[in-house]
Amino acid sequence: MTNAFPPNQQFRLAARPSGLPRREDWQFHEEAVAEPGEGGIVVKVLYLSLDPAMRGWMNEGKSYIRPVAIGEVMRAGGLGVVIASRSPRFAVGDYVTGGTGVQRYWSGQADDKTAGFIRIDPRLGNVTAWLNALGMPGMTAWFGLKEVGQAKAGDTVVVSGAAGAVGMTVGQLAKAMGCRVVGIAGGQDKCRFVVEQLGFDACIDYKAGPVHAALKEHCPQGVDVYFDNVGGDILDAVLARINMKARIVICGAISQYNATDKVKGPANYLSLLVNRARMEGMVVFDYAPRYAEAAQQMAQMLMEGKLKSVEYVVDGFETFPESLNLLFEGRNLGKLVLKVADA
Amino acid sequence: MTNAFPPNQQFRLAARPSGLPRREDWQFHEEAVAEPGEGGIVVKVLYLSLDPAMRGWMNEGKSYIRPVAIGEVMRAGGLGVVIASRSPRFAVGDYVTGGTGVQRYWSGQADDKTAGFIRIDPRLGNVTAWLNALGMPGMTAWFGLKEVGQAKAGDTVVVSGAAGAVGMTVGQLAKAMGCRVVGIAGGQDKCRFVVEQLGFDACIDYKAGPVHAALKEHCPQGVDVYFDNVGGDILDAVLARINMKARIVICGAISQYNATDKVKGPANYLSLLVNRARMEGMVVFDYAPRYAEAAQQMAQMLMEGKLKSVEYVVDGFETFPESLNLLFEGRNLGKLVLKVADA
Repeated sequence: MTNAFPPNQQFRLAARPSGLPRREDWQFHEEAVAEPGEGGIVVKVLYLSLDPAMRGWMNEGKSYIRPVAIGEVMRAGGLGVVIASRSPRFAVGDYVTGGTGVQRYWSGQADDKTAGFIRIDPRLGNVTAWLNALGMPGMTAWFGLKEVGQAKAGDTVVVSGAAGAVGMTVGQLAKAMGCRVVGIAGGQDKCRFVVEQLGFDACIDYKAGPVHAALKEHCPQGVDVYFDNVGGDILDAVLARINMKARIVICGAISQYNATDKVKGPANYLSLLVNRARMEGMVVFDYAPRYAEAAQQMAQMLMEGKLKSVEYVVDGFETFPESLNLLFEGRNLGKLVLKVADA
Repeated sequence: MTNAFPPNQQFRLAARPSGLPRREDWQFHEEAVAEPGEGGIVVKVLYLSLDPAMRGWMNEGKSYIRPVAIGEVMRAGGLGVVIASRSPRFAVGDYVTGGTGVQRYWSGQADDKTAGFIRIDPRLGNVTAWLNALGMPGMTAWFGLKEVGQAKAGDTVVVSGAAGAVGMTVGQLAKAMGCRVVGIAGGQDKCRFVVEQLGFDACIDYKAGPVHAALKEHCPQGVDVYFDNVGGDILDAVLARINMKARIVICGAISQYNATDKVKGPANYLSLLVNRARMEGMVVFDYAPRYAEAAQQMAQMLMEGKLKSVEYVVDGFETFPESLNLLFEGRNLGKLVLKVADA
């Protein structure tokens, strides 16, 4: 089958990885772009969002979302431009974000529920902000901090994965709310970045020394909210420093995603008892009906310079397997985005 | 110093135990009972409450209550009768409960804040109910289940330590609220007891086989509330079966109290994330202003036969060290109480 579109390229899941995904776990696939039917559109993907959660989607087993099937195009959020439309919902030239999957072109019904495309305004700063502060990571930060974490002015908020997509925004939002904000990140560059560029009060380099001692130094009043993106030993170290009625938001556990052994549970969890504290999981999708409300406020903050959306852009669709792994190697400073094409 | 009172006998903490407390960790001490001054009373202890939490109080380090000091009379709740009074608050012959410590006589000011004596009605069934369903364990069950666990009719409630003081009452209260109640306990006797005597829907004998499989069988609708008294592998097994928005009440972790290794953290804690669930610690003292309200309702339930307060009474003050350890050996069926004297 041939048509007016260039050939589509995709990364499909070839095998369920054990540990860090390897090239062989992916199948590079070329096929024709499906002609849009009545009500259909074709989106040319410009950027793909690379997120730690993608590692979880590659595993079998019950989770908050069904696993990607073997042979299926890898699930991913993307940003693109509509290049063909037989739907009144979108016009050619519209910028959209949604679940494009890891491919160069998405073709299907404009109202496809799984893709869930929305039109975006590409003039608001970097268009990639729509995959970051104005996208899923930003929504996660907003609702995680405010709804689950119940942060309030005067609280000490600690966030791990501080230089990553979610952590970066958590810290900035908490600062804007009047909290003391301490990040945890791997390496001096990341720590400098969140303190100097993003205005965190302090940042602990977990590679430089014991996190426990550094928490004591930087959180002299203890920890009221901990936004956890990493799990493992860092979660344990923070548990030892929480205050009465502290709230721990379990957003992710990147330290554990490629573990081939059993996940390490937080040995200090009885600190929850001693401190009448709470540890609660969150999945951003639950807040979908309220995304617009949050995005509007965050767009306002972006325009006023009160929030920065920093993306770490890697170029080249074909580098997808290696680029995804940058997340687990802790190499990205800011939200990891894969550039697929120019508009 | 001698006076009209028989000599007092006490168990004082001699050393901080490693693992299960041994005889040598206790100092048996005799001294005269202090004459009550103006505003003072002397309480003859009839029963002592033996609780898992006592093991924690023997350890050094920051917790929800200061540790018992070396050389100090061991902290314990007790029930006794006033045998001398120079206070208008209590008359000779009054029955009281409060923090008597592990001794035969308590002497001090009637309004002593640490002891916190309250007058009780000894005619309401077994007087020992005041150390059980109408005492701290009952209060823990009431507020833990209703306030922290947010249990509601139709929920599946799982409780570990089901045949112990707190678990026993948690299960009965949950049944009265219209929940499906599944206990977890060690041994067939305990399981039969909570099902046949207390009306639980089912009970899992964790010594008989894998808890995970049994949970699947007995909680076909998953678990909405888990009231955890034990920690360890059982907490992990329940985490794997929780429902969306489940509430896990961390009340205790008896499996870990005598651990000489590091506490085992719940490896399945990421189930909190997947299920947007919550794990929250509780300490009953926080609800002190509302004890009266709860005790009144539970006394009513006791009188109407809707709640049973079952105590496992061991006789003999001098057996305190061995009797306390029955808890950790899992030997008690119902609330463990040490009988010290007849009235």
